This record gives sequence, structure tokens and C-alpha cells, in this order.
Amino acid sequence: MTDTPWIAVDAMGGDKGLTVMLAGVAQARRRYDGMRFLLVGDEAAIRDGLRQHPGLTANSEIVHAPDLVASDEKPSQAIRRAKTTSMGVAINLVKQGRAAAAVSSGNTGALMAMAKLALRTLPGIDRPALAAPLPTLGDNDVVMLDLGANTEVDARNLVQFAVMGAVYARATMDLAEPRVALLNIGSEDQKGTGEIREAAAILRDASGLPMNFTGFVEGDRLSRGDVDVIVCDGFSGNIALKTAEGTARFVGDLLKRAFASSVRSKIGFLISRPATDLLRHHLDPNVHNGAVFLGLGGIVVKSHGGATELGVATAIGNAAKMVRAGLTDRIKQDLSAIGQTA
Amino acid sequence: MTDTPWIAVDAMGGDKGLTVMLAGVAQARRRYDGMRFLLVGDEAAIRDGLRQHPGLTANSEIVHAPDLVASDEKPSQAIRRAKTTSMGVAINLVKQGRAAAAVSSGNTGALMAMAKLALRTLPGIDRPALAAPLPTLGDNDVVMLDLGANTEVDARNLVQFAVMGAVYARATMDLAEPRVALLNIGSEDQKGTGEIREAAAILRDASGLPMNFTGFVEGDRLSRGDVDVIVCDGFSGNIALKTAEGTARFVGDLLKRAFASSVRSKIGFLISRPATDLLRHHLDPNVHNGAVFLGLGGIVVKSHGGATELGVATAIGNAAKMVRAGLTDRIKQDLSAIGQTA
Repeated sequence: MTDTPWIAVDAMGGDKGLTVMLAGVAQARRRYDGMRFLLVGDEAAIRDGLRQHPGLTANSEIVHAPDLVASDEKPSQAIRRAKTTSMGVAINLVKQGRAAAAVSSGNTGALMAMAKLALRTLPGIDRPALAAPLPTLGDNDVVMLDLGANTEVDARNLVQFAVMGAVYARATMDLAEPRVALLNIGSEDQKGTGEIREAAAILRDASGLPMNFTGFVEGDRLSRGDVDVIVCDGFSGNIALKTAEGTARFVGDLLKRAFASSVRSKIGFLISRPATDLLRHHLDPNVHNGAVFLGLGGIVVKSHGGATELGVATAIGNAAKMVRAGLTDRIKQDLSAIGQTA
Repeated sequence: MTDTPWIAVDAMGGDKGLTVMLAGVAQARRRYDGMRFLLVGDEAAIRDGLRQHPGLTANSEIVHAPDLVASDEKPSQAIRRAKTTSMGVAINLVKQGRAAAAVSSGNTGALMAMAKLALRTLPGIDRPALAAPLPTLGDNDVVMLDLGANTEVDARNLVQFAVMGAVYARATMDLAEPRVALLNIGSEDQKGTGEIREAAAILRDASGLPMNFTGFVEGDRLSRGDVDVIVCDGFSGNIALKTAEGTARFVGDLLKRAFASSVRSKIGFLISRPATDLLRHHLDPNVHNGAVFLGLGGIVVKSHGGATELGVATAIGNAAKMVRAGLTDRIKQDLSAIGQTA
């Protein structure tokens, strides 16, 4: 059991609290083999909660942390309490090498700031980026980055994001040569900012890497399934991600309103319930959970604040895949390869 | 009839060609009062097509233009043929004062370039912007700008976009004080780029204008109906617009797939058909058609390339509303007001 990796879980973070976090860890233990858990937070509360999950006790240890990062706490404030908060202690377990990855459903800004400070940026990476899997019509999700860590970027940053995104796609989605594209406002060569065009030129020449650069992708093709990694600055990425989430909810709300508009439609809704349930499942953020802060000297996974038991388990499963794939080392390798070709 | 405005219509532009354009003009004539039309394009073909629309003949004149702007033609190329193409001639009719507005379903880049060259930017406007109405859950559409005319902008540009967007919302949606917000990646004051924060500061102080600046809006709230005008740079605006379109189509495709997944679901679909038709109508781009290039010395409306008869009529109706509201003069007025307060 010495080779079984430990995953540090911030047991206190997230809107739904300890009970859902523990249930998520327990589900992850049942769904994925070969993981052990460091449950970080209030020791008495965790011990109490574990009574509901006897199977988990043998595969976990509790690491006490008396404090909690608030959901509206400023990153600069959270950093000062890194030694006593469940989030800070979970990240520190990765730094100390006791855990192979940390997972938290807490405050994103605080998590990014603490992770960056504790784990440092990898050599060869100028700026880390936030990446997450999104649903598509295709066989696998699409990984998008950066989703908000860097408001402004240069061509070099975008190229590094592409390399990291491709490693993430290979690690978590079992793709040998992920198709990588840059988000742009047109598909022609002369479209977009100078940074994007320059990044495209570098990626077109970087033939030695296990990825397939396919050029530009526009906002209307994010979910078509014809690309595996979408690279962009953190401002547009955040806008695109939230617009996609908001539009999916908008269409869902319109559909609900339409189904409620007549007795006939209500009956139709009841009969087609399995279909709308299928739709809901496909779009459920808990099925695609697990944003990751790429480019650091350790793996830190951000689960949705509102993640359910399923969502927490999915995020932990993603963390385990990254650990097993040796994500951090593979990013280092690919970066040195592009350093030679670019 | 001397006061009845003339609308110049590029009868040849758009993916669906002359027949749909003429049918759209005919529908606009029936739906909206007090408009006359200058139908620009191949005279013989238009005369022939008009036989299907006897009611339109009395309210229109044909203006011959032998050439056509191709859908993939570069703007720089199209400009050189402005005197002979239906698009170029339609814009020139506005310049000459013979038409109060021009409407085209043709090549967007070419239309913007020709309109800017022929009609010039309004005094006080540094850069024109592309604006369009999008569907929401609320009582009216939301106007979004810029949608791609300006890849990079400064605070001054954003403030001018806000003023123009508010005038457009008052003119086309009968709102006395439109709620205006800046697109951003968070709602807190310190979020986003320096340009956005600076624009917010100026708009917060500009209390004399008939608009209500509500701060920042994130991508997930575009269609909630709690804001009437959303202001952003052309890169993020284009990404957000296309992501919204793509996601709506994605959810629709998933829904179709889900409905087709079992006999029970197929039956449910048939019964709830009126509900899904209602949804389709609400999201139909033809119901919200009519992007406009704001900030020029004349009104130029861009209809979707694939606009149907309904879409063309909607775009023409929007053009007529802008003409009646005296859009161009009102932009000039509001700009001078913000010049005094800012």
C-alpha cells in the first residue's frame, strides 16, 4: 500500500459543507481504486461524520485544521491564515509531499493564491492557468483554459497554456494526440489580436509535441466535439465559460416555462421525462467537475462550490488521474520539447 | 407622403438571395406603417421578383446595381467596388440623403468597412461599434455591443459604446432609462481590466444621461433580463455572442438526441410539440434580427446572412424604429451631455 497515493481533501470547503464532502470522498473511494485520503478540517466534526462512512475510515486519516476560509474572503487575507485553515493545510500537505494532490470546493481566488504561493510556478511557466472540462456533443469533454487566472496574456503564455492543456487532456481523457485550438473571433489567419496570431504561428511550428494544433475555434463551436483543448486568455475564457453555463440554464428555464404553458405540454413533459433527465445529466456540472490550476509544482483541483456528492467524487477522480499520469512531470517534459522547437 | 422615410434594401445580399429579401420587404410593409423602399440590385431580376408582391410596387423604387459583394470577399476588395455593388449603392443612398437607413444581409466585414468609409464616424465617437439585440427571460431583449468591430478598446471607447447602446435601447425597445452594465469577470469593483474599471468610474459619475448604470454583469447573466444594454470590447462580445448561440444550439441538439432515444420519448416529444415550438420561436434569431453599426453618420442595419422572410422584416422594422427615433441625432446629444459630466 506504500504506492497508493494520498489525496488531501479540504473537508470544510464548499457551500454544502462537511457532510457532502465526506459523502463525495466515500463515493470516490468506491468508484476509483487505489487512493487514500487525508481529510483536512475540524477533527471532531470529521470523526463524527465518518461514522456514516465506515468503509472510508480504513483508507483515510484526519489532519486537524481549526479554521475555515470564508467564501467571500479576499485572497490576500486568506493567505495569512494558510497555516490554520483547512484549505491552506490541504495545500501544504502537497507541498510537504505527504499528499499527491489537494481537492477543495472552497473560495477559488483564495485557493489559487495559496496554491501559487505554496507550490510555486513550474520552471518554464510564466503564469499558471485555470483549466476545466466542459460537456460536448462528442465522445469526450473539451478542456478550456485559462478560465480567469490571467486577465491579460501574451503569445508565450498562450503557448504554455496549450502545452499544459494538452497534457491535462492526455492525462484525464486518455487521448494520445489531443486536438488543440486557440479561441478567436474568426477562423482566418488575420483574425484576432497580435498575441493570438503569434501564438498560432509558434504552435503551428511545434511539431514535436503529442498534440494536434488545429488553428482557431470560434465561440459557437466550443461544444461541437471537434476539438479537445481550447486555449484563451482568462478574461475571454471566463466570459465564454459563464456565457455557456448561463445560456444552458436560460434554455432550460425557457423549456420549463414552455412545458408549463398548457395541460397538453405538461402531459408531454411527464411522458418525455426520461429524455429531459438525460439532457439534465449530460449538462450536470457535477459530471464534469474538477477545474485544475495548471503550471504549479503540485496538483490542486477546484471542485464547484455547489458540488454534490457526485461532483466531489468526480473532482477527486480527476485529481487521481492527474496523479497517476504524472501530470507535473509531463508538463515539464513537453515544455522543454517546445523550448527546442519554438 | 413626403415625410415617409425611404429604407434602402440590399436586395441581392444574404445566403437566401433575392426572393427571400423581397418577401421580407413585403412582410415589413404589411407589419409596419409608413415606410417606402429603395430596392437595390439587378433591375430586371427585382422587377421580375416584384410580380409576386403587387402591394410592394406602389411603395418601392428600384435602384439598379449590376454587381454583388461575395460572402467571402475581403472588405478591402469590396470597398473598391462600392459604386457598382448592391451593398455599396444601398449605403451610398444613405450618404446622399435619399434613404434614411440601409439594410443588408450580406458580408458583415464588407458592410462595416463600406459604411464607415461612406458615412464617416460621428463627431465625438472614436470608434463605431456593432450592436445587436439578444433574447432574454425578461420583457425585452438585451442589446449587446461591441460584437466584433473593435478587438481592443480603451475606457473612452467603452463609455461611448454605453451611450450609443442606451440610445439604441430607448429607440428600439421603448425604454425610458435602460439599465446599462459592463461585461466583466466578476461583480466586485476590483475585477477586470484597467479599461473596464475606468469606464465604470466614468459611467458611475455620468448622472445626467437617460440611462441607469448598474455596474458589472458576468457572462452567466446575459439572458436573465435584469439588464438592457451590455457593453464590452469586440473580442469578448463576439466570443460571448457566439458562445450563447452555440450553447443554445448544443442544448437543442442534446434535446433532439434525448427525444429520439426511446419510443416513449418520441411520443412525449409529439405531445409536447407546442412547447418546443414555443422554445424554438423564443430563440429564433429571425425574431431578434437587426444588428446595427452604431456611431456613424447614418443608419446601417446588418441582417443575419441566413435571415428568413421574417428575419428580413424584423431587421427592416428595427431600422425604421431607429429612423423614427432620430437615432443619430440622439447619440450626438447624449455624447455632448456626457462630455460635460465626464
